[in-house]
Amino acid sequence: MKRTKIIDVLTRTEVGTELVVKGWVRAFRSNRFIQLNDGSTINSLQAVIDFENFDEAVLKKITTGAAVGLTGVLIESQGSGQSVELQVKEVEIIGEANPDDVQKTVMQPKKHSLEFLREQAHLRFRTNVFGAVFRIRHGVSYAIHKFFNDKGFFYIHAPIITGSDAEGAGEMFHVTNLDMEKLPKNEAGTVDYSEDFFGKPVNLTVSGQLEAELAALALGQVYTFGPTFRAENSNTSRHLAEFWMIEPEVAFNDLNDNMDLAEEMLKYICKYIVDNFADDLAFLNEREKAEQQTKPVNERNELTLLERLDFVINNDFKRITYTEAIDVLMNSNHYKKKKFKYEVNWGTDLQSEHERYLVEKEFKRPVIITDYPAAFKAFYMRRNDNSELGKETVAAMDILFPGIGEMVGGSQREERLDVLKEKCAAFGIHEADLWWYLDTRKFGTVPHSGFGLGFERMVMFVTGMTNIRDVIPFPRTPGNAEF
Amino acid sequence: MKRTKIIDVLTRTEVGTELVVKGWVRAFRSNRFIQLNDGSTINSLQAVIDFENFDEAVLKKITTGAAVGLTGVLIESQGSGQSVELQVKEVEIIGEANPDDVQKTVMQPKKHSLEFLREQAHLRFRTNVFGAVFRIRHGVSYAIHKFFNDKGFFYIHAPIITGSDAEGAGEMFHVTNLDMEKLPKNEAGTVDYSEDFFGKPVNLTVSGQLEAELAALALGQVYTFGPTFRAENSNTSRHLAEFWMIEPEVAFNDLNDNMDLAEEMLKYICKYIVDNFADDLAFLNEREKAEQQTKPVNERNELTLLERLDFVINNDFKRITYTEAIDVLMNSNHYKKKKFKYEVNWGTDLQSEHERYLVEKEFKRPVIITDYPAAFKAFYMRRNDNSELGKETVAAMDILFPGIGEMVGGSQREERLDVLKEKCAAFGIHEADLWWYLDTRKFGTVPHSGFGLGFERMVMFVTGMTNIRDVIPFPRTPGNAEF
Repeated sequence: MKRTKIIDVLTRTEVGTELVVKGWVRAFRSNRFIQLNDGSTINSLQAVIDFENFDEAVLKKITTGAAVGLTGVLIESQGSGQSVELQVKEVEIIGEANPDDVQKTVMQPKKHSLEFLREQAHLRFRTNVFGAVFRIRHGVSYAIHKFFNDKGFFYIHAPIITGSDAEGAGEMFHVTNLDMEKLPKNEAGTVDYSEDFFGKPVNLTVSGQLEAELAALALGQVYTFGPTFRAENSNTSRHLAEFWMIEPEVAFNDLNDNMDLAEEMLKYICKYIVDNFADDLAFLNEREKAEQQTKPVNERNELTLLERLDFVINNDFKRITYTEAIDVLMNSNHYKKKKFKYEVNWGTDLQSEHERYLVEKEFKRPVIITDYPAAFKAFYMRRNDNSELGKETVAAMDILFPGIGEMVGGSQREERLDVLKEKCAAFGIHEADLWWYLDTRKFGTVPHSGFGLGFERMVMFVTGMTNIRDVIPFPRTPGNAEF
Repeated sequence: MKRTKIIDVLTRTEVGTELVVKGWVRAFRSNRFIQLNDGSTINSLQAVIDFENFDEAVLKKITTGAAVGLTGVLIESQGSGQSVELQVKEVEIIGEANPDDVQKTVMQPKKHSLEFLREQAHLRFRTNVFGAVFRIRHGVSYAIHKFFNDKGFFYIHAPIITGSDAEGAGEMFHVTNLDMEKLPKNEAGTVDYSEDFFGKPVNLTVSGQLEAELAALALGQVYTFGPTFRAENSNTSRHLAEFWMIEPEVAFNDLNDNMDLAEEMLKYICKYIVDNFADDLAFLNEREKAEQQTKPVNERNELTLLERLDFVINNDFKRITYTEAIDVLMNSNHYKKKKFKYEVNWGTDLQSEHERYLVEKEFKRPVIITDYPAAFKAFYMRRNDNSELGKETVAAMDILFPGIGEMVGGSQREERLDVLKEKCAAFGIHEADLWWYLDTRKFGTVPHSGFGLGFERMVMFVTGMTNIRDVIPFPRTPGNAEF
């Protein structure tokens, strides 16, 4: 008999059916009740064994972490907590698990610290929390692909290894095939990259945006979804050295279209998860509520995880310009009482404390801040036509989320070749390094816009996890590339 | 007025509707007929201009490659070749394109070599061939996500940067954050990786399989879809240094289940593309037919692209063991007439000429070869219980496609800890480097299987492109990391 997945047993199998389930034992109580999980759902199937009919040697091997196959009949449950249970006729011990060893792992059913769970990233998939997180991570990914596919976008794989270093988005990892112990040198005594695999120095990408623009200016609507890298030595709960980004790019879209697209996408993702991952979400919601109880009252979230998702789905994001944001901050009591650590004035970038004030205290919803000063935004962002002299702004937008900070950063791109060349010069970018990017402004240039969504930050928001290392299977951080 | 995408104009807009389209001019004939393409479909919209009503200065800017916005009314077409056309009322020149410069690019409407198109990878998206290829590439990707999602698989992002070097799948790229001009050295005079970002040497992944196994042994059914890397100096039409792989892994699946899954997936992808990308496929089909005419008769394909796709959808793959394959080859006239260059005998790996003979001459369909000698397969493949002494085989399977060669490679994995440890020793793999992998065989180990699909090879098969560099936006090959 083929095995039936537990999600199918629990949601679409008639009482009275004989079936086989296979999975891992989460618990075995009173020599009678097996909680069996196969990863298809957070819910374990309760299987009931009449221990008098089974060999004691077999029963002894039904331990937490062991893999078993159970043949039996689905019946209405006698106990509370589940509507059906399996009356077991046959037990197959597939893979044992030594209880003494299991006790040292995250599989032992008790509360473990998230740090300990990270050290056993290979086993944490077997816990309720991480089962839920990684099923939902899949859901977020699928929702994104479906959202864009249904709108007629084309998925573009931007290159991971790149010789382009123009974005200036941060420190990059070098990629080389040279023998590090015997680096070839040229006459000047520096590394001879002509002997390297690509014949020149190359890096891991920090963004697929520039390449996405090339595709958008032909295919119309595209998006990337790929890994990006930052060699920044920041050990925070919001940063990874390797993370995934989604970067849509749309020809003929202006900044307003861009904001509309981003807001629609974020709402779509939240709704998709609420609609399709109710059990996992309910578990994470309860988990967060319990955790909140351990915190001082003034540090607790105002809304539960489920309430936050509903709130995003059902409310418009607040859209304000950077200039307006500065006004709001300077007119706040918070500012007047000198509660901000960092200065607030036009021309200074917003700090995390300012963003949090706007999102969490002032507007209490996701906020889109637009039209930032050009000075602290990237060279490719479009100079606003109405910029005041000395107060030049660009058509940028950042979407800030409660508890997360920047979820999305985007802009309308500079499509005017002459302005773009000015910006390259001002940013110290050699035109020769970006000849292909500039080419698109020579041949039928059009207004276009796009943004980047940090995938892991989105997964944090929809799962309520507060450390980014807990929403990616195998986090890469300074000093950490295990597994 | 919001612009309407050309695919919507051509497929779901009523005659008589007034609308705005925006796109790039493919051709402008007789000062009257504009072929406008916006990338949403391979089909250009014909727009008709009454040149007497327009400024000559405007008309002059309607050149190949220029971006224009056209406002007009959709009418039934007067000419042949299209059913509707746009009667233009207003023209907006959005971005000009200097005709002398365009002439030097792949946008110039004439036949270009694929090599020339590769040099202008940033502009080749604007050609019919590459528009079709990259729309279909999106389709293949989406079909894969949909196939697995609908079956209840979870998408796992395996790490790209990895300290694990166990697979032995080929040369790896090093990733480092050290200053290459001033490498820190330790007392022994070798590179001091404790100062590197991760505190040890790390590489770009060659496969996400081992990590996928970790997830499958908890979540049940998972797949990866990510970039993988080989630092091999092979300049062939079938190899890239950076390519994308799909690696499903399923707990409780044996080798037969594994083959069933792979065959179903490959058929699903082909059918999805036939069903959803008819126009792009028809174009590529005609393109290939024309190209075939330029070849000697005996080198031409027996089937057209569309026929090959139908054939895969409608026919079972041939499944034979390696041992049977050797028999077939040794009994062939081809062998007897000494037409194989490489030797054929049990224990020697199959060469490309042997695989091609089996697929293209003997069985004339995709062939799955199973149960290879253990000696030339990876350490993690499951030793067959029925292996003869000295003729040990493993539960491996390779799927060979006509014109492509190996499309899929997979196996049942060795789930027995003792056998796996033997294999590690035999392959010179330190158990300490794979402690996390071995752990899964200690805690509820189960039979499980998976495979790897080379994404670009699949895109080659469904587009008929014969060089792998022509199915990825920005190919990375030895000496080549442009864009």
